[in-house]
Amino acid sequence: MTEREPLDVIEAMQSMPARRYLKPDPIPDDILWEILDAAIRGPTGGNNQQWGWVVVRDPEIKQKIADSYRPILQSAYGHGRARPEDLTGGKRLQWGTLEVAESDVGVDAANQRAVLHLADTIQNAPVLVLPVIERAAAYNDTQAHGALLGSFIYGAVQNLMLAARAHGIGSVLTGGRVLSDISDINQWLGLPELAAVMALIPLGYPERGRWAQPKRRSVEQVTHWDRWGEQHTR
Amino acid sequence: MTEREPLDVIEAMQSMPARRYLKPDPIPDDILWEILDAAIRGPTGGNNQQWGWVVVRDPEIKQKIADSYRPILQSAYGHGRARPEDLTGGKRLQWGTLEVAESDVGVDAANQRAVLHLADTIQNAPVLVLPVIERAAAYNDTQAHGALLGSFIYGAVQNLMLAARAHGIGSVLTGGRVLSDISDINQWLGLPELAAVMALIPLGYPERGRWAQPKRRSVEQVTHWDRWGEQHTR
Repeated sequence: MTEREPLDVIEAMQSMPARRYLKPDPIPDDILWEILDAAIRGPTGGNNQQWGWVVVRDPEIKQKIADSYRPILQSAYGHGRARPEDLTGGKRLQWGTLEVAESDVGVDAANQRAVLHLADTIQNAPVLVLPVIERAAAYNDTQAHGALLGSFIYGAVQNLMLAARAHGIGSVLTGGRVLSDISDINQWLGLPELAAVMALIPLGYPERGRWAQPKRRSVEQVTHWDRWGEQHTR
Repeated sequence: MTEREPLDVIEAMQSMPARRYLKPDPIPDDILWEILDAAIRGPTGGNNQQWGWVVVRDPEIKQKIADSYRPILQSAYGHGRARPEDLTGGKRLQWGTLEVAESDVGVDAANQRAVLHLADTIQNAPVLVLPVIERAAAYNDTQAHGALLGSFIYGAVQNLMLAARAHGIGSVLTGGRVLSDISDINQWLGLPELAAVMALIPLGYPERGRWAQPKRRSVEQVTHWDRWGEQHTR
């Protein structure tokens, strides 16, 4: 096992921003296995583990994914489109009785540059991880079932990214849209008929940036005690 | 801040089974705040943080939720219904070329007893956390959008449970079905019109059991290298 420093679990969460500037340097196999083995300790309903974890290192497949993914990222973020208003259907955010500090929400100029950098370079990340739910299409096609499907995979995905963090490897959760917009991806990966790719996570050692605290609205602003709108200070 | 031992992040994941036997002992406020503050470092698309975290300690609301939740859990798990075949629509699981060790999948008799115990006692957990997406219904009502919604919350939910683990507090992710089956819950919590409860997570100090490794299919069985079905040993 490759040696690493222990990292406290809460400290890990408090120092894990999305990393979008990644070096092409390879990730050793034993580290990848350790990260994946941590991922699959995440929860699934009824412990059904109806998942597969596709680890893409083949340059050709990475390039195909990148070529399809780039325009999606560009159209989402390339023209200042990622304002919080857009993501909430045009409504200004308001949380209970507390004002929202706008700068803690959405994507600022530096983030936007980072997203576009990733769009241009994702094929150079040493590893792309694509978590797959095998019989996703067998669930009823409703939002409730879609959300249920999400609860069967994204906890494990978070484990994956935190475990990578423990090894000094950066990542970012992308690709909610992969599911619907890159229909060829199932074929490239040879997925079973009813399978769905649930995310696209590049992994790599960081090229720039730091393990800063992820910028969020304060916990007081988003916590409600017993009833929505009942908020108090820490 | 309440003192605690540091806990390595990968060690945390490797010792965090679902805990369903919980003591009624209260959780101190400062620990709850620390857990919630770790949760909200989880990812959302475009950092939109369109979430609220409802922390229920009011015995009356807990009882209402428990009374609605009990029959759902009982009908899902009460009669041996949680076999992996059921959760996959009747199909026997098979993963690539490797055989599946059945005992690592699904819910065994001890788990089933634990689920029914939780169904009977969830109102006694000191805290129920209900992560809410505020304008969930504004997303198109499709599976893809449902899954996207899931990617906006379940990473943070995993953070919540891991941070609780760091404090020796047990939890279990339940309630994919809450979303569709307990329609009154939005009213009890006074949620905004388009909001959706995405999960129900009881938190409490464990009454029995231990921080064992979550039982899963081996990582070799669920990892595919470059293409589905390309599997190799660690």
